[in-house]
Amino acid sequence: MDDIIFGKNSVLEALIAGNREINKILISKNSRPDIKLNKIKDLAREKGIIFQFVAKEKFSQYAEFNHQGIIAHISPIKYMDLDEFLEKRHVNESLIILDGIEDSHNLGAIIRTAVCAGVSGIIIPSRRNVQINSIVEKTSAGAINHIPIIKVNSLNNAIEKLKNSDWWIIATDASAKDNHYDINYNDMNFAVIMGAEHAGVSKSLLKLSDFIVKIPMMKDFNSLNVSNATAIIIFEALRQKLTKR
Amino acid sequence: MDDIIFGKNSVLEALIAGNREINKILISKNSRPDIKLNKIKDLAREKGIIFQFVAKEKFSQYAEFNHQGIIAHISPIKYMDLDEFLEKRHVNESLIILDGIEDSHNLGAIIRTAVCAGVSGIIIPSRRNVQINSIVEKTSAGAINHIPIIKVNSLNNAIEKLKNSDWWIIATDASAKDNHYDINYNDMNFAVIMGAEHAGVSKSLLKLSDFIVKIPMMKDFNSLNVSNATAIIIFEALRQKLTKR
Repeated sequence: MDDIIFGKNSVLEALIAGNREINKILISKNSRPDIKLNKIKDLAREKGIIFQFVAKEKFSQYAEFNHQGIIAHISPIKYMDLDEFLEKRHVNESLIILDGIEDSHNLGAIIRTAVCAGVSGIIIPSRRNVQINSIVEKTSAGAINHIPIIKVNSLNNAIEKLKNSDWWIIATDASAKDNHYDINYNDMNFAVIMGAEHAGVSKSLLKLSDFIVKIPMMKDFNSLNVSNATAIIIFEALRQKLTKR
Repeated sequence: MDDIIFGKNSVLEALIAGNREINKILISKNSRPDIKLNKIKDLAREKGIIFQFVAKEKFSQYAEFNHQGIIAHISPIKYMDLDEFLEKRHVNESLIILDGIEDSHNLGAIIRTAVCAGVSGIIIPSRRNVQINSIVEKTSAGAINHIPIIKVNSLNNAIEKLKNSDWWIIATDASAKDNHYDINYNDMNFAVIMGAEHAGVSKSLLKLSDFIVKIPMMKDFNSLNVSNATAIIIFEALRQKLTKR
């Protein structure tokens, strides 16, 4: 069964990445041509992918998706297996592990930020976490085609495997003593566990972690949006890498 | 005309902040009592604010808002005037200036992150930028009640005023030479200008800025979501403050 992806960025990025089969592209007859749309048409022609111009009413069922008058029918994303990921040699790389993220927009934003920061993959559990859907694809602005999504049945097992493969595990927790920037992220493979917005990282995963860190806050206020929290940590790691601390 | 705010966090934070008039709170009869809901009821009683239990059908018109069975009618947020803000003495403080942000979720997330980082205020233009609406309030998780929102008719004039009041202006631009972490954020009042997701910061504002910085990326990919980009920069400034670099 095909997925549907929405919007110019999503369709364009899927065409560029080329790792999924695009079965057809539907474009609203009312769409005004612009640089992105022209690029989409050129690439589709080049790759022999059908695109059709259809009445804008065809899109009314997708009103909630901010489709910009363009959708594509595409094969579902292929998840990577953790064993397959670990078969390759990894040097000073990073992973993000998501534990119970519920919001599609947050997952999409995390994927996008992960690609910008050069993260090597994102691990999500097959249950109790939002899965890849159209909103995730849209919010990721096509980034989803540029990073392995590793789906696992048990985060506990996945973390054990990572530790046995010389990965260091960093969990985030609001009550941690250490600050996230106290970690030296250079010269190791590390995976950062980000928890659900309300519940945080599960106790069993905290126990398995090598480091537990917090993002210090200036006000005693609620907490950060999880995609922003993820961005702060992985871009601190990138800062350290680029400046050698 | 009252605003309507949605969800337990939004209502609770508005009650705690106490800086806006809450005219009534409507709670779905089907809501299960929990800690937050009990806190809301206790605070409402204490402050003499009416709360009513209503049929859940009353909420159907707000389906898109993830209202969690609770809404409140509340006086609109009071914007602060820039002159009023500048009358007070500011030492090593920060501001965020938003130039053309279109997405309500992004504005809400930026407000939330700004409060967590102890930012002193957010400046938005009265045109060509999303304004404070119910989605912004909800996404901010109530943070909007904890930070001045400064609305100005002209960002150019606002920046001139800030510069005359000893604030330093930092603009973000993908083609900048300097990285955002090369700035020493300590010992100055600074305002960071964040631009629209596609267009970036306007040329006229770039010209007025003291520093132009980028967030370095590992892949040649699109760009960060603007709320994540904002989080990365203001939390780097906070890191510097807390570690004295």
